[in-house]
Amino acid sequence: MSRRILVVGGDAAGMSAANQALRTAEHLGEDVLVTVLERTGHTSYSACGMPYWVAGDVDDVSELIARTPEQHRAAGIDLRTGTEVVSVDLAARSVQARDGDGTHRIEFDELVWATGASPVMPAWTRPDGALPHGVLPLNDLDEGAAWLALLAVDEQLDVVVVGGGYIGVEMAEAAVRRGHRVTLLARSRVLKGLDTALGDDVTAAMKEAGVDVRAGANVQSLGVAAGRVTSITVDGEEVPADAVVVATGITPNTDLVRDQLPAAAVGASRGLRADQHGHVHGHVWAAGDCAEVRHLVTGDWAYLPLGTHANKQGRALGEAVVAGPERSRWSFPGALGTVVTRFEGCEVGHTGLARGEAELLGLDVVELVTRGTTASGYMPEAEPIAIKVTAERGTRRLLGVQVVGGAGAAKRVDAAAAVLHLRGTVDDLAWMDLSYAPPLATAWEVLQVAARRVAERLG
Amino acid sequence: MSRRILVVGGDAAGMSAANQALRTAEHLGEDVLVTVLERTGHTSYSACGMPYWVAGDVDDVSELIARTPEQHRAAGIDLRTGTEVVSVDLAARSVQARDGDGTHRIEFDELVWATGASPVMPAWTRPDGALPHGVLPLNDLDEGAAWLALLAVDEQLDVVVVGGGYIGVEMAEAAVRRGHRVTLLARSRVLKGLDTALGDDVTAAMKEAGVDVRAGANVQSLGVAAGRVTSITVDGEEVPADAVVVATGITPNTDLVRDQLPAAAVGASRGLRADQHGHVHGHVWAAGDCAEVRHLVTGDWAYLPLGTHANKQGRALGEAVVAGPERSRWSFPGALGTVVTRFEGCEVGHTGLARGEAELLGLDVVELVTRGTTASGYMPEAEPIAIKVTAERGTRRLLGVQVVGGAGAAKRVDAAAAVLHLRGTVDDLAWMDLSYAPPLATAWEVLQVAARRVAERLG
Repeated sequence: MSRRILVVGGDAAGMSAANQALRTAEHLGEDVLVTVLERTGHTSYSACGMPYWVAGDVDDVSELIARTPEQHRAAGIDLRTGTEVVSVDLAARSVQARDGDGTHRIEFDELVWATGASPVMPAWTRPDGALPHGVLPLNDLDEGAAWLALLAVDEQLDVVVVGGGYIGVEMAEAAVRRGHRVTLLARSRVLKGLDTALGDDVTAAMKEAGVDVRAGANVQSLGVAAGRVTSITVDGEEVPADAVVVATGITPNTDLVRDQLPAAAVGASRGLRADQHGHVHGHVWAAGDCAEVRHLVTGDWAYLPLGTHANKQGRALGEAVVAGPERSRWSFPGALGTVVTRFEGCEVGHTGLARGEAELLGLDVVELVTRGTTASGYMPEAEPIAIKVTAERGTRRLLGVQVVGGAGAAKRVDAAAAVLHLRGTVDDLAWMDLSYAPPLATAWEVLQVAARRVAERLG
Repeated sequence: MSRRILVVGGDAAGMSAANQALRTAEHLGEDVLVTVLERTGHTSYSACGMPYWVAGDVDDVSELIARTPEQHRAAGIDLRTGTEVVSVDLAARSVQARDGDGTHRIEFDELVWATGASPVMPAWTRPDGALPHGVLPLNDLDEGAAWLALLAVDEQLDVVVVGGGYIGVEMAEAAVRRGHRVTLLARSRVLKGLDTALGDDVTAAMKEAGVDVRAGANVQSLGVAAGRVTSITVDGEEVPADAVVVATGITPNTDLVRDQLPAAAVGASRGLRADQHGHVHGHVWAAGDCAEVRHLVTGDWAYLPLGTHANKQGRALGEAVVAGPERSRWSFPGALGTVVTRFEGCEVGHTGLARGEAELLGLDVVELVTRGTTASGYMPEAEPIAIKVTAERGTRRLLGVQVVGGAGAAKRVDAAAAVLHLRGTVDDLAWMDLSYAPPLATAWEVLQVAARRVAERLG
């Protein structure tokens, strides 16, 4: 009989795992049956692309879908959309799944948990037990479509974004580009993981675009009339609101399996701790936003829900669940916390640790912010850029880099990420042979000037 | 008495060395006299910026000058412009230098050779023993000014660029942007270091901009009338030419010192072999375009004349010439052959080795070209990009990466350069945590897809 691999969740992580499992089985001549249960009708869509769909960059939702259910089925996957897992029995190796026809028991040999995460909805979002019209997170394609319907209108609306993280910033951009009046409420400040000076640059760019950015904001309640949101009360002030984006964080979808796993297999985030092969425990595997990953700078587990990890983890998992870890040709090494985004012309990038995170680990750190330009100062392409480099005293090890600046700024963190991945020093970053041409960089690449200044500070 | 550090050449390498020597002396409390002899009246200008000055991006030549002679003098450097060294006696530790007042003997304790390089002028450039009007290289600010005068005119000229290297491509761009008819003659092909498929992409971009690109071209002679160039004969065909850019390569300016040094201190390029501290032999040091550097992938010496190395080498040299190598706080580790440029919307980047260079070293290599996009396919920012990844079979070591594509393509080589610098594998490049956001990258960053495909090919 075929080995039964059951994947729960049909987005990036699950479908990467399913596809790789089939390819690996073919490569090894193994007999497997790969079944994917997906709650919605969609597979393999770009969640990260949704703010740009709402903003109008993407003409049709089909562009966000990397592969349709039909394409997955044609590749040999037993894909069942509209099928929600309602319970799991790890000991019996079976799940109960509900579809249009009722609830069925499905057995497995290996379970791949790839259920993603759900938005955290604060109590104030449901004043009468339900979300008022116009109050919504942005978590799946249906919510993306709802946001498109709300914001792609001729009328100028009052849009309030609650949450100063990456999704909040991207949805604020989308609402600005749709011509609305936008308020962003951040509990602490915008992109709080960034150095204060760099975060201030982002805030300034948002304010320049007309966003009313409020840091240290405490949301108290919603005003609702006829089932629609009309206002949001923040620190005693009633702010008009035709729509409220709830971007206050997400939590891993692990309720159905968490309690059946050893405590060590589940993180404080409630994410499943999947090793470099995606293996959690026994016959349970996990990838994507429902999983924690190894942070390569701290060595600890971390909850870093991002599409890149979902794709990579899924692929490594798909190989290992068929080949076994010892025969796997590759594995997911872990992550560095690399993130980039953009607010109009202002790009933001971040990799590794900031001072606070490093000091929590007991590291003695030095960090400096360096300002420069993305291209030679005499070129029209030159844009301001600010870079913070963080390194460990003594070992001189690079710990992290943050960047805020104009076009071309954000992807500069990739060279720093490579140094972090290979555990290089701040001197490596400062003196290695990075590229230069006047329209693209300065003769001393600004990232290297930033690293050199920290190296000099280290003596 | 002060230790006398004599720097010959006042551009990037020489002035970086001079400035750092003063800073290091101050740091250590050493007593030094730093004298710089510069043939022209200019210091510290951006040679790489000259094509953009000619193109019209730079309003005034002063923008190309990072520091003026006056600024250097104010910093404490005994800078003598308009002073040309005519002979060197290494044994006697002295040079003969000519200025407006005649020839003087100058003694030194340490000699820093930073004389740069000169263009190689083929025999056909001087049909009557001298360069006709309109035939010129682009090597110093005076030649930049001459090109500006030639090309910044209302009349549409026939401009012929001889040489398919980076300078040739950049000058072709400048001439196109000035509205001229441009022919580019490449002895082999455009950017011959690039993979054929990637080079073809660059050629296609140049042709689309109206450049008549001719590969495999052999220049035979110039037509001259009244001292001005009128045509250039290529493979028997007479091509009209109002101006001819000679960009056929450069050679290190080492005639005055080469024969006084041990054979091992001079490379086949005639560049001086300067170690990580800029030290060549005895009391002779060198940096910049007159020097060879260590290639970190091959381990051999290489002639890689680029402004980035000049700056870094100069700085490391300035530290070591005062502190001594053993007390130096940093050093120039060597280079990877990283280069980027741009022809209008087409960006080009290269780091490490291509197949041919690797096979010369006896390495067994695998390489593949991967095509993708710079941003998620559904985003308006998405531009085509082609990436070639080269790796060694067996060790799986990354050997080189080449990139051709739209905006955002070229600087992607920096992450690959970091992997090369730290001697990582193609798997490191494929699986490390590089950044993703839809306007800036694909979820599997295209550079990583390219690396992964090679990794898979390696089994």
